[in-house]
Amino acid sequence: MSLVDLHGKDLISTQEWSVEEINAVMELARSIKIRRYSGSVPELFKNRTFFMLFYNTSTRTRASFEAAATLLGGHAQFIDFATTRGAEGEVIRDIAKMYERFGHALGIRILESAVDYVYGMGNATIREYAKHARIPVINMADDMYHPTQAITDIFTILEKFNGRIEKKKYVIMWAYSDKIRSWGSVQDEMLIATRYGMDVVLAYPPGFDIDEKLVEQARENARESGGDLEITHNLKEALRDAHVVFPRSWASHECVKTGLNRFGREKELELHNKYRDWKLTKELADTMDRHGIVTHVLPVFRGQEADDEVMDGPRSVIYDQAENLLYVRAAVLALVAGRI
Amino acid sequence: MSLVDLHGKDLISTQEWSVEEINAVMELARSIKIRRYSGSVPELFKNRTFFMLFYNTSTRTRASFEAAATLLGGHAQFIDFATTRGAEGEVIRDIAKMYERFGHALGIRILESAVDYVYGMGNATIREYAKHARIPVINMADDMYHPTQAITDIFTILEKFNGRIEKKKYVIMWAYSDKIRSWGSVQDEMLIATRYGMDVVLAYPPGFDIDEKLVEQARENARESGGDLEITHNLKEALRDAHVVFPRSWASHECVKTGLNRFGREKELELHNKYRDWKLTKELADTMDRHGIVTHVLPVFRGQEADDEVMDGPRSVIYDQAENLLYVRAAVLALVAGRI
Amino acid sequence: MSLVDLHGKDLISTQEWSVEEINAVMELARSIKIRRYSGSVPELFKNRTFFMLFYNTSTRTRASFEAAATLLGGHAQFIDFATTRGAEGEVIRDIAKMYERFGHALGIRILESAVDYVYGMGNATIREYAKHARIPVINMADDMYHPTQAITDIFTILEKFNGRIEKKKYVIMWAYSDKIRSWGSVQDEMLIATRYGMDVVLAYPPGFDIDEKLVEQARENARESGGDLEITHNLKEALRDAHVVFPRSWASHECVKTGLNRFGREKELELHNKYRDWKLTKELADTMDRHGIVTHVLPVFRGQEADDEVMDGPRSVIYDQAENLLYVRAAVLALVAGRI
Repeated sequence: MSLVDLHGKDLISTQEWSVEEINAVMELARSIKIRRYSGSVPELFKNRTFFMLFYNTSTRTRASFEAAATLLGGHAQFIDFATTRGAEGEVIRDIAKMYERFGHALGIRILESAVDYVYGMGNATIREYAKHARIPVINMADDMYHPTQAITDIFTILEKFNGRIEKKKYVIMWAYSDKIRSWGSVQDEMLIATRYGMDVVLAYPPGFDIDEKLVEQARENARESGGDLEITHNLKEALRDAHVVFPRSWASHECVKTGLNRFGREKELELHNKYRDWKLTKELADTMDRHGIVTHVLPVFRGQEADDEVMDGPRSVIYDQAENLLYVRAAVLALVAGRI
Repeated sequence: MSLVDLHGKDLISTQEWSVEEINAVMELARSIKIRRYSGSVPELFKNRTFFMLFYNTSTRTRASFEAAATLLGGHAQFIDFATTRGAEGEVIRDIAKMYERFGHALGIRILESAVDYVYGMGNATIREYAKHARIPVINMADDMYHPTQAITDIFTILEKFNGRIEKKKYVIMWAYSDKIRSWGSVQDEMLIATRYGMDVVLAYPPGFDIDEKLVEQARENARESGGDLEITHNLKEALRDAHVVFPRSWASHECVKTGLNRFGREKELELHNKYRDWKLTKELADTMDRHGIVTHVLPVFRGQEADDEVMDGPRSVIYDQAENLLYVRAAVLALVAGRI
Repeated sequence: MSLVDLHGKDLISTQEWSVEEINAVMELARSIKIRRYSGSVPELFKNRTFFMLFYNTSTRTRASFEAAATLLGGHAQFIDFATTRGAEGEVIRDIAKMYERFGHALGIRILESAVDYVYGMGNATIREYAKHARIPVINMADDMYHPTQAITDIFTILEKFNGRIEKKKYVIMWAYSDKIRSWGSVQDEMLIATRYGMDVVLAYPPGFDIDEKLVEQARENARESGGDLEITHNLKEALRDAHVVFPRSWASHECVKTGLNRFGREKELELHNKYRDWKLTKELADTMDRHGIVTHVLPVFRGQEADDEVMDGPRSVIYDQAENLLYVRAAVLALVAGRI
């Protein structure tokens, strides 16, 4: 891993890791991917334990991290926070120290819904664990960030464009759904893509602005990398000649900042309903660049965020992208807590 | 494994596998059993992942598959479907593709109760997964079949009769209980036993017929193998000189075909109550062949399906049979998805 | 492991193991601890399975046993009893035999709350499993004992006092909390400490006597080891010059013997409320011996059982103690069911 040493380092947002560090993850991920197909992945996490503490449930994150630990010869424990003493009031420093002593890394997923819907409290909780645990803490999705997903996505985009992604147009489009989703994935995508020199376009209807500070950070990223960040309410315009489109529903600005409990689910869904035409149809997808690809962190709400024709069509890379979660997560585990 | 190559093959019912293929499983199972006692089982599933997706809960299937994966150096993830995005409406093809990309095989358990009690819908759901996943799908019990159990049971019977089971009388008897159980085990037992040349007797009270198409299939199996399939409502007659008896409660024909929700639990239990004397007592067991054995897939409802005297007596092979689940499941994992 | 052979032995209470046997566990635990830091723990449980059956939930016990099995190359299955057929009435002998056939050791946690609050029924249930299973049964905390915790605690005390603990004053103090906790840890601590020659002081308010038979046993232990057992209601007196203090809330004698359901939570908490000053404050801790340490099995109820100043202060060894759970549990698994 050249001169980058990630051992013991927390991964809370991609922004806190240098591009060199993220490149080191991707380099190892690529190597694990190649070796997995040839059947000879080195046991970089042999007999080690990754604790996965879930305040919110998960399908992909649990399955891929656990499979990644297994792939490297170790094990990831799937822990439902509701079944722990933490749920009975044990303080975070005691929980953090306990996992520190028993294992090698601690992953945490905590979205707004688990912390009374105050934006940023999920992230603050993860930082509280990280403050106390001497083993690395890995953010497995919070209300602000989803770093292993973001690295996976840029890894996939690099793969699909043979490493040349500077000035490629990456559209993160708001999409209709009757679900209320966090900003974490969208924000971490925006942050990482602007660091890799992409021309990122955030397209969403009025009222769906995301965290203004992180948008500011992304602008700064773009200035430094030579990329760009544009915000628009014009979906058609946004999609034209796009190289990458990620159609994703997220909660309105007011809802997130007020807290869903106070804001009200009904009221939020009414807002969504006004923009049912924000959907990636085949017609819209056909306005993309000839080589343009469609990504998604999954689950995709088919028929709402995007049509089946698109998600199952030739532009869609969603399953390759999902597969890459395995390699990126394995690489992160190996680098921050493995036998390297 | 001679010339049989099972790599990548789904196991949805035993009927879809040739006798040679099933023999290959049993051959490897036997070898794993011998080697486990000597402590040197080869790591045929080393660092590989088997996903176990449970729409319905499980004791034995989970414990044995997970222990089997561990025995071969890999890992089985126990996934409660209710905690996944599938429960929130993610489509099966997306779930199937995800597991395909992360792991090496996908097991699914889904009984009537998880799919609104329409007979065959559990099986259809598994086939939907199999259609989309390129990794092998293993049926861990549905409303029609329970193939790894069926192979284990024929394996156990072969063991107990030193490989000579042609024309041996195998009685699958309906037995009273206040529980409402699927047809899966019973049907897959009938199918496999008729292929191995046994004289299968289905003994049950009027109204407890199972799937008529599968009965027809079993008759065909018997014709081909030189075995037999007989159906009777006379329990005493059935048990006389039997070599194998499997006392098992199952739901009535009308209940299964109507769907329990519509048919009603009360009404079904009233039907059961009419046949409380359908129990394997010691007296009845004593009419079996001198060397006759009693089997069960477990859990056995003691005092209802059979008396303790029988289940704990010398004819009972239920724990040896349970143990064989470990070897057969390990062999299946190794053959369809392992390093062979 | 000298001449002590623990293979196949149940661990239900420390009292049932000889001091030589407990020493063998601690010797191996020490060796695993040293080797873990150097990265070369031998795979003493390679590809073996430890079943952990939880009637009551757990944080530390599950996390540490599962990490211990992983550390030794094997796997521990986390099983929620509520999801098994046992919860539907499958008898214990059938469950016990099943796990016996699939794996190498069976751990069980069962407190009063899981068995209708009759004192001793949790322990009796574990003994019922042990009677039927030929693989070793490990008590992972019941209503009477918590042996792996007790061994860990004496191991930690030995470590902190460089092996010289005879006649050292070990105060197990009742402490206020608004939770209702079992006697298991307290009783097993008392039993083991009196066997290692410590001067054990049980300090609690009137009405909080624990199991009188086990107190009698502890007196006998002390007579044999040259240690002592004293009971007092005077907390101040007890803490003076103490070498070890364990501040721990537990249920009143009448509550435990009557059963919480009948006795009533309200009534029990009223009793607790009378003794809110039974808390390990810094002021009180400062009356301990200059080298005195504070222990806890965790979770500690901060602000109730003890103040943060104490639990986070220089006397506190709680995280080192927690870490030792990993080594002691690994050693127990290796010795009773491993490749030794």
